[in-house]
Amino acid sequence: MVDNTLSPHGGKLTERVTPLQADDQRVRELKTIPVRSQIASECVGISYGFFSPLEGFMLKADVDAVVEDMRLASGYVWSIPIVFDLSLEEITRLSLREGDTLLLTHQDQPLATLDVEEIYAYDKEHLARQVYGTGDENHPGVRRTYTYKDRFLGGKVTLINPPHVNPPYEKFWYTPRELRERLAERGWTKVVAFQTRNVPHAGHEWLMKGAWFAANADAILVNAVIGEKRTGDYIDEAIILAQDMLRAAGYFKENVYMASILQWDMRYAGPREAVFHAIVRKNLGCTHHMFGRDHAGVGSYYDPYAAHRIFDELPDIGIKPVVTLEWWYCPACEGIAYEGLCGHADRKQELSGTFMRRTLEIGVRPPPLTFRPEVFDLVKECADKYGFGSPFVTESYLKNRNPVMTVPPLGPAG
Amino acid sequence: MVDNTLSPHGGKLTERVTPLQADDQRVRELKTIPVRSQIASECVGISYGFFSPLEGFMLKADVDAVVEDMRLASGYVWSIPIVFDLSLEEITRLSLREGDTLLLTHQDQPLATLDVEEIYAYDKEHLARQVYGTGDENHPGVRRTYTYKDRFLGGKVTLINPPHVNPPYEKFWYTPRELRERLAERGWTKVVAFQTRNVPHAGHEWLMKGAWFAANADAILVNAVIGEKRTGDYIDEAIILAQDMLRAAGYFKENVYMASILQWDMRYAGPREAVFHAIVRKNLGCTHHMFGRDHAGVGSYYDPYAAHRIFDELPDIGIKPVVTLEWWYCPACEGIAYEGLCGHADRKQELSGTFMRRTLEIGVRPPPLTFRPEVFDLVKECADKYGFGSPFVTESYLKNRNPVMTVPPLGPAG
Repeated sequence: MVDNTLSPHGGKLTERVTPLQADDQRVRELKTIPVRSQIASECVGISYGFFSPLEGFMLKADVDAVVEDMRLASGYVWSIPIVFDLSLEEITRLSLREGDTLLLTHQDQPLATLDVEEIYAYDKEHLARQVYGTGDENHPGVRRTYTYKDRFLGGKVTLINPPHVNPPYEKFWYTPRELRERLAERGWTKVVAFQTRNVPHAGHEWLMKGAWFAANADAILVNAVIGEKRTGDYIDEAIILAQDMLRAAGYFKENVYMASILQWDMRYAGPREAVFHAIVRKNLGCTHHMFGRDHAGVGSYYDPYAAHRIFDELPDIGIKPVVTLEWWYCPACEGIAYEGLCGHADRKQELSGTFMRRTLEIGVRPPPLTFRPEVFDLVKECADKYGFGSPFVTESYLKNRNPVMTVPPLGPAG
Repeated sequence: MVDNTLSPHGGKLTERVTPLQADDQRVRELKTIPVRSQIASECVGISYGFFSPLEGFMLKADVDAVVEDMRLASGYVWSIPIVFDLSLEEITRLSLREGDTLLLTHQDQPLATLDVEEIYAYDKEHLARQVYGTGDENHPGVRRTYTYKDRFLGGKVTLINPPHVNPPYEKFWYTPRELRERLAERGWTKVVAFQTRNVPHAGHEWLMKGAWFAANADAILVNAVIGEKRTGDYIDEAIILAQDMLRAAGYFKENVYMASILQWDMRYAGPREAVFHAIVRKNLGCTHHMFGRDHAGVGSYYDPYAAHRIFDELPDIGIKPVVTLEWWYCPACEGIAYEGLCGHADRKQELSGTFMRRTLEIGVRPPPLTFRPEVFDLVKECADKYGFGSPFVTESYLKNRNPVMTVPPLGPAG
């Protein structure tokens, strides 16, 4: 065990951003690989320190330690492998070898460099079983793992061309350094993080309120995961704008609530993903992280409270979990009630995502204690403005949406 | 400073109960003084350890330390003098001197003995100014102090004839030892106390719920102060039964809530009384005590949050204060909202005691988010059953009410 209590994770915020200019000779000489959006977003995550203490894609020793012991080789807690995969074919084509520096491009522009320290094969099924607790390829995280190419490249990453974050996300995008500065400016020393990939209903709102009390927090940081979408998910624009609407419409006071985004492709790894979320939010400056029922789960792969119990084994993670039961609508209490307090469980009305989706689909304004009216109206507006008519992800949205980030051409010649 | 962290206060629960029998010679030989209900109830409080580490009425050194430094002479935190007052006339009549043992009677029955260690005079105005922050005799605590007789008698108290607690209070009456046993049986290790002398409205209910979260408590102990009443107060029967109704009607689950009583004549000493309440609830086995706005205050003698700040000076008190702002009804949130979170302060509807009283007076069923319907109905029922038609204390109630406790004749001859 090592000291995880320092903040950020590992004690030092990783910052590996060195903007290059268009005429920089180094760019032209490098072997070049275009990367998909998952890898591009992880390059950004690594370089700004969202994933501190990582400085690049993992070497085999780290993946081994993460897979077997949920720690890095250095001993710090870590739960999800962050790897760069490449086919043998590509490796051969580029005559790639350890010691090379690769130029990673995205959207046809230079993005980052990768100092290749190690090229290695890995047993993907073993990785999947350890990280996801299953080898079932119906699990989206497992499926993602199985589609990884034959070899992993480990080594440090440097962002050479910081992408622009586009509207409406740009107001919610902070690097860990920026966010830590904002929290300090506001005088917030105890901040409890809320993970979301949903438009908030009243149950989410009270989950946050209850956790704020339980953490005796100054404020709540909503950190919405923006990344790879599946058909039927809420569109990203609706998620982040609706979360912010809870503040704008006064369901939270200005001085206790802040909405922000995290670029990350959900792995749906349940308890292991909960640990990952905790570490990232620790890097963002949060002292606490709330975890409701079935955090980051999918299907019925995980016990709904596995993500609560996993923290019992990680007393040294350095961010405090705030674990909560269900909030529901209680007709006897005439309001949102907490499973741990309300004696009318037999009459509870679940605030289920499914019910919320139905109200949106049929377009009938739901009762204010399910969706807040301002949230409901905003989501309808987002459907028109960003969703090609739907608040949910469709094929058309996937094809035509405005990208979250744009990699610009390299800066003007120096 | 001494170690206040042990539980009960001072490290050891005082227990000075030695039932005597009717033919016990000792009783007949003692000088006898009938005592008023304040003193009788304090004899009970001392003897069962509600006021641990006190073992009797205070000696001058303790009163001095309490008055000047809010500590006992031994160094333990203590805020309110617990004194036995007697006129010089009575002292002369009985030829009372230090070293005597007095028999205290109540309701014409032997109740307790007092080993007179010290007979002393005290500057009552100085005491009042220090304890109540004012010498104004309109303050009920100050007025009580001024009516104390000329001399104080300090010394140990022994309960020789435990009173019976009458219905409907008897189900809510636990000695500190009994209560600690009950908490342990239920597996409650973190219990947050709620002080009350009111019928609960929805704001009180949520004050308790919020504090339960903030303390990460297993349960809430409602500890209703039953004692001297003023005209217009809620009748005691309505207070304790209505608090228990929150559990019975499911606004709190069975396994998180327990109602109990404390026999104590309120001093309305604001911050000093908050400290006293904290110590007594520590003796009852509570780990936390919630304090809302204007705790134990009266009129405008105290800053509404003075009772929050006083604990900053008492880090060694050994029970954790949970301080809370206001809960109100918010029409925008459509429910009970917390001052620290709700952004609609301009639209708040105060859940004032005055409004609650009015609804009871006119008998119109209030909205469920003010008074819970079961609570409202119960209070009306109590008015008929115990209040001579009123839920509020009247002259008729004061004269004819059933006493909370009855001192029986001494046990049968051994």
